[in-house]
Amino acid sequence: MNLASLTLTNIQAATADVNDQVAELFQFHRGQDVFFMLMLVAFLMMFIRRYEWGVALATLLVFATSFPLYILAQTGIFGAELGIELIIGAAFAAITLVIAIGVFLGHISTISYILVGVLFVPSYIFIEWFLFTFLENVADAGGSILVHMFAAYWGLGVILGLRNKAVNQEPAATSVHSVSFVWLASMLLMVLWPSFVTALLPPEDIIPGMANTYLAMVASILVTYVILWALKRTIDPLVFTYAILAGGVAIGASVDLANPWQSWVIGLIAGAVSTLSFLFLDEWLRGKTGVWDTMGVHNLHGVPGIVGGLAPIVLGVAGGSQAIAVIGTLVIALILGAIVGLILRIMPRPTKMLDDAEAFPAEEMRATDPA
Amino acid sequence: MNLASLTLTNIQAATADVNDQVAELFQFHRGQDVFFMLMLVAFLMMFIRRYEWGVALATLLVFATSFPLYILAQTGIFGAELGIELIIGAAFAAITLVIAIGVFLGHISTISYILVGVLFVPSYIFIEWFLFTFLENVADAGGSILVHMFAAYWGLGVILGLRNKAVNQEPAATSVHSVSFVWLASMLLMVLWPSFVTALLPPEDIIPGMANTYLAMVASILVTYVILWALKRTIDPLVFTYAILAGGVAIGASVDLANPWQSWVIGLIAGAVSTLSFLFLDEWLRGKTGVWDTMGVHNLHGVPGIVGGLAPIVLGVAGGSQAIAVIGTLVIALILGAIVGLILRIMPRPTKMLDDAEAFPAEEMRATDPA
Amino acid sequence: MNLASLTLTNIQAATADVNDQVAELFQFHRGQDVFFMLMLVAFLMMFIRRYEWGVALATLLVFATSFPLYILAQTGIFGAELGIELIIGAAFAAITLVIAIGVFLGHISTISYILVGVLFVPSYIFIEWFLFTFLENVADAGGSILVHMFAAYWGLGVILGLRNKAVNQEPAATSVHSVSFVWLASMLLMVLWPSFVTALLPPEDIIPGMANTYLAMVASILVTYVILWALKRTIDPLVFTYAILAGGVAIGASVDLANPWQSWVIGLIAGAVSTLSFLFLDEWLRGKTGVWDTMGVHNLHGVPGIVGGLAPIVLGVAGGSQAIAVIGTLVIALILGAIVGLILRIMPRPTKMLDDAEAFPAEEMRATDPA
Repeated sequence: MNLASLTLTNIQAATADVNDQVAELFQFHRGQDVFFMLMLVAFLMMFIRRYEWGVALATLLVFATSFPLYILAQTGIFGAELGIELIIGAAFAAITLVIAIGVFLGHISTISYILVGVLFVPSYIFIEWFLFTFLENVADAGGSILVHMFAAYWGLGVILGLRNKAVNQEPAATSVHSVSFVWLASMLLMVLWPSFVTALLPPEDIIPGMANTYLAMVASILVTYVILWALKRTIDPLVFTYAILAGGVAIGASVDLANPWQSWVIGLIAGAVSTLSFLFLDEWLRGKTGVWDTMGVHNLHGVPGIVGGLAPIVLGVAGGSQAIAVIGTLVIALILGAIVGLILRIMPRPTKMLDDAEAFPAEEMRATDPA
Repeated sequence: MNLASLTLTNIQAATADVNDQVAELFQFHRGQDVFFMLMLVAFLMMFIRRYEWGVALATLLVFATSFPLYILAQTGIFGAELGIELIIGAAFAAITLVIAIGVFLGHISTISYILVGVLFVPSYIFIEWFLFTFLENVADAGGSILVHMFAAYWGLGVILGLRNKAVNQEPAATSVHSVSFVWLASMLLMVLWPSFVTALLPPEDIIPGMANTYLAMVASILVTYVILWALKRTIDPLVFTYAILAGGVAIGASVDLANPWQSWVIGLIAGAVSTLSFLFLDEWLRGKTGVWDTMGVHNLHGVPGIVGGLAPIVLGVAGGSQAIAVIGTLVIALILGAIVGLILRIMPRPTKMLDDAEAFPAEEMRATDPA
Repeated sequence: MNLASLTLTNIQAATADVNDQVAELFQFHRGQDVFFMLMLVAFLMMFIRRYEWGVALATLLVFATSFPLYILAQTGIFGAELGIELIIGAAFAAITLVIAIGVFLGHISTISYILVGVLFVPSYIFIEWFLFTFLENVADAGGSILVHMFAAYWGLGVILGLRNKAVNQEPAATSVHSVSFVWLASMLLMVLWPSFVTALLPPEDIIPGMANTYLAMVASILVTYVILWALKRTIDPLVFTYAILAGGVAIGASVDLANPWQSWVIGLIAGAVSTLSFLFLDEWLRGKTGVWDTMGVHNLHGVPGIVGGLAPIVLGVAGGSQAIAVIGTLVIALILGAIVGLILRIMPRPTKMLDDAEAFPAEEMRATDPA
């Protein structure tokens, strides 16, 4: 029996290893999809026809700084191990920042994005601590609060601290293909979204999470179309391509808690709220604050992030700490963002706003005629 | 021995669970690739320079209706469980419809696509029942018949029922970048195709299916180029980018039955047949029916779908029920499509055909000059 | 005990099978990503506004010939089995060629690419034999030498043998969106790069390889921006989008040997070397040789490939055979490429260089105005 039970233990260990390795290897692809989405967020913001390359450049610069710094901080200061969980954690940090810069794209000069990447990391590590160490039992597996809400309100904090009103006067015309890139980005983000919200879930929750996510997102498509058609009799592509992603933003906090048709309803509400934010709240907020959220981040990530953050309370699966998480994140994000905005005032203002000419040279490279 | 054998049973159960969970988790990514392909099909159809956003919008509207309705019907009426197989099944339903609308894009007003999504689901559930419950031993793991043939002939049925001939007179000019998006979509569809045709295969058939699929597709590339060059001395990009996918369409029915070089030959034949359909059959069919297949769906999905559907008979691995499946699908699809086409006559005709202005407002958003 | 140990053996075998199948199925997706990257390389080279479709067509033609021929040679001549390793090996062969044609895009007529695909396969099989059979202990899991160096110097060999100087005079103007496609390709190549360099690694090396690869690449982003800004005060998008990939090129040889921060440094050095090659070496080399590397392949794949190939020696994990591998590959690639270049002289020269009009017809299909 000795030999047999020894071997049994070995086999059990081997099977467990397979389990672990399988789970890890699966996270490889879901993790990679998060990086894919990070890049797509740049294309989601490329609708200004004279400001396409500049958006891509800003995205890459904040990625190149925040991603390794977050890993450095977690391994160097907090003793974390550099495995797939940390790679995904760092990708979450970087994509949060890429979403956040959408609020102030064009407000700062290109080189400032390097500083933004550096300053963002402590903010993000603080909010992670607040949500998952200071608080307990916060439901946010898919990042409605940590990623989307924090990105939107941290970005709003930055423009409130920075107060560059000159950018409000800049032209932001679109072209047919700059907007077609936005369609591409929006549609592929929708496809990859399940990888994002299930990236850190245990294996048994991944397939249900995928169903919930797609159901939430198709509900957003439908409600966005219906509201735009009902209120305006015309579809603004820069509202539609954004608001249809609100279901993905909002499902994050309850991706492993809701059932499929609850998820569909969450997507319906989030899409409606996001569409209405684009149509009405955006301008009101611009008027109140005097500063402009360049890409309308607040309408897609801020408000639907709050809806998603509160959803587990409505579903009866979260309590008071969930409400504190939502309110606390809003306040902390605004304060930390405003501090960064104030610091950014020391940097040179952009010579050209919402325009690639700020970083790139050659007008002659940018022809669109076929000659 | 009691303890040992008990533990042995436990381990066997655990190992089987790993197997199942691994297989399921693998389907997550292949399934996600099917959604990716669904979006790429929209970009494959974006070559009309004044009708890019409208194609994307129509795609999203039929996705947003057919996908949840199919899940609702399968779970609510037929008692299916919402796991990865059903998610993929619903994605297959939705992508079939996205292919099908290519036949009548521009023929109907934007809001009608919501009705199309609703009306398609019973058609699709019927053909699934016909192919895999009514008939037995039909070889179609990768959807040559269920997806491609059904999409093409259901779409043809719709335009025959609808008979909107006004669209034939509409201009459908291209631009260099609207066609470049088609190249992107075609090339990425080729890459993802193995995920589609192996999505529902058992693990041991997945790698051979991948080899078969890529071999079929590269054969299509070669033969399409050679035929276009031989007959025309010039490459029409809107024939080339489509016909090179015919190998993927045709390999579907025998992806788990053919050997690698048989697959290459299937791709060669399918590519040739598709190219010749674009060059000759398309115009003949337009003349005969008086109605236009907007995107040439019949040339890529219809005819190569028949080639693929019949291939298992030629390979000697399928019999009479395979022939009945092919002929039956053609007839059923035309009839069900025509009924939907007749119903769609109650909807308002589009105010602008093959033009984004039907759904989107602003001419000023669509500039292409760099000013 | 007999029954128990028998069952134990069975279970061990079953567990091993799970392991193997899991590893294989994982390679499915990493392999598919290599095909994805192959297509993206085409878009990376699409910046010439009158030569977008032609680049895509050339890519597909060399893919359609080299991929099946490599499989045919390996299975038919060398008795290899057509499993996932061979599929990935053939994809590596094809992507190496797609990189290589970047050197001589526009130098040859479209139909010549079919001949190029045929002639490349023996060259590539020879270099594989040289690196991994003739030599021993060469570190190159991620293809710094086999893929990148060989592609660059084989391509240079081709233009040296071919000597088509007329192409040097051709206009190669860009447009805003032809360059935006390059941004898209560059950013997505970065995302998928870990799949490429870990495609043939054992499971336990995959996650560390992913971390190393992303760290190398973000270092390239940072150093490329800093050097361009320091030396030029302006960012050339066609240097930036290329040089930021140099970290991925260089990490290939030590992806399973370096630690994370060594990887970051490798990316920093590779990015710097690539940027400086674009700024200074490129023109010097054009002057010396009289022939033009159309896409600057040498600056991204050649020089950073050498850096990557030598890195394991600097890290102290490889010895003399590594140096022989690097030098030998350079010499062999130039010779084999030059032979192919001489053979290509028998083919008709392109009627139009760096221009889609060589293969595609219709000027009227290529409008960019919105009318």
